[in-house]
Amino acid sequence: MASRGGGGVGGNLSYLSQQEAIRVDEELMGPRLGFSVDQLMELAGLSCACALAEVYDKATHPAVLVFCGPGNNGGDGLVAARHLTHFGRDVRVCYPKRTDRELYKGLVKQLESLGVPFVEVDEAIASLPACSVVLDAMFGFSFKGEPRPPFKAVIEELSGCGKPIVSVDIPSGWHVDQEDGGAEDLLRPEMLISLTAPKECARRFKGKHHFLGGRFVPPEIRERFGLSLPEFPGTSQCVRIS
Amino acid sequence: MASRGGGGVGGNLSYLSQQEAIRVDEELMGPRLGFSVDQLMELAGLSCACALAEVYDKATHPAVLVFCGPGNNGGDGLVAARHLTHFGRDVRVCYPKRTDRELYKGLVKQLESLGVPFVEVDEAIASLPACSVVLDAMFGFSFKGEPRPPFKAVIEELSGCGKPIVSVDIPSGWHVDQEDGGAEDLLRPEMLISLTAPKECARRFKGKHHFLGGRFVPPEIRERFGLSLPEFPGTSQCVRIS
Repeated sequence: MASRGGGGVGGNLSYLSQQEAIRVDEELMGPRLGFSVDQLMELAGLSCACALAEVYDKATHPAVLVFCGPGNNGGDGLVAARHLTHFGRDVRVCYPKRTDRELYKGLVKQLESLGVPFVEVDEAIASLPACSVVLDAMFGFSFKGEPRPPFKAVIEELSGCGKPIVSVDIPSGWHVDQEDGGAEDLLRPEMLISLTAPKECARRFKGKHHFLGGRFVPPEIRERFGLSLPEFPGTSQCVRIS
Repeated sequence: MASRGGGGVGGNLSYLSQQEAIRVDEELMGPRLGFSVDQLMELAGLSCACALAEVYDKATHPAVLVFCGPGNNGGDGLVAARHLTHFGRDVRVCYPKRTDRELYKGLVKQLESLGVPFVEVDEAIASLPACSVVLDAMFGFSFKGEPRPPFKAVIEELSGCGKPIVSVDIPSGWHVDQEDGGAEDLLRPEMLISLTAPKECARRFKGKHHFLGGRFVPPEIRERFGLSLPEFPGTSQCVRIS
């Protein structure tokens, strides 16, 4: 059962542990609900793109630099990068550890067809001064341990870069479960987009903008995991939590 | 090359023939772009749900009856039905010829998990007076010939039902290519949501609302098929054509 309390609409927001988040994902893609990872990733990535666009205006923040990790969080970032490009943003993507699966290869091709440049880590870091906002899609809710190269160096660079950072689901490098972070909390995103439901570590998020994305959780999942979540407005794929 | 002229933003809208529409679809899902049908259907269905919600307000049009055919158009309808449910609409679905594929079975399960009732044709037709708006997702751009049972009877019933009908991509029963329709144009939708680009038959659409959905067409496809299309505003998944 998700834990509650603190922050959010009505001050009664739920937070999932790492194990609960894994189980929610398994339920969504299991035989009872039958979502494909393609579907969920498309909706999750779209919600991230919409949330970023809602907070960071195109006129003031035209250039988005996206860092993608090797797993599903990176896939969400690739999808978000595509939608941000359709939204008229000038996007570049750093995706140093590519996943050898058809879905991911397709996501890369779709970005290439839009003329989105893929850049190496060094080039991405060198281009930080010219970007308006960074989308951090390196590590998600299944992350454990310590960031490894080349992501360790990216996190270090981002932590002092002075650009607004938007993290997808988990600020990369943060321990997912712990309420109190330590030295691992190098990254201090200005915005966090929790997907499906906030994870425990979101309690220690102190940035300006906390959003929820992933408008696909059915009531039976909400009930089983005791999720208290804000309502999405109208046809929006995202909602502000705080 | 898509033909142009008439209607739309700037009066220079493109219309795809049936063969061109099939080729665009093949390109999108081919090795160069690598979209999965799951992805495209999710975005297409979402855009239909958003467009319907933009035109038919929840307060005045709470109950949506969705008719789904056996192919991809029906799949778009199933996705739209799910999003409309998340948007707070009271949705029921009539899906008499089910497709025996994992994606479609998943789409049904997702609707069932939201408590959306699946009704037989007779029950659906009997419930027409209680519904506010009908979503027609029976036949899409690959349709040829004449509607067969049970869809033939559904089209006949809908043609005289007096409820606003929203057609996904093609008004069901219409010949996709012909500029001039004939007796086959039984259905007179009030709204048409063209997906990717309008098809030739959209030239004879005389309803109140024509929208474009499917915000995923890369420039190389637009150029190769000579597509002149309106720009989507902001982060919207749909745009009004006329």
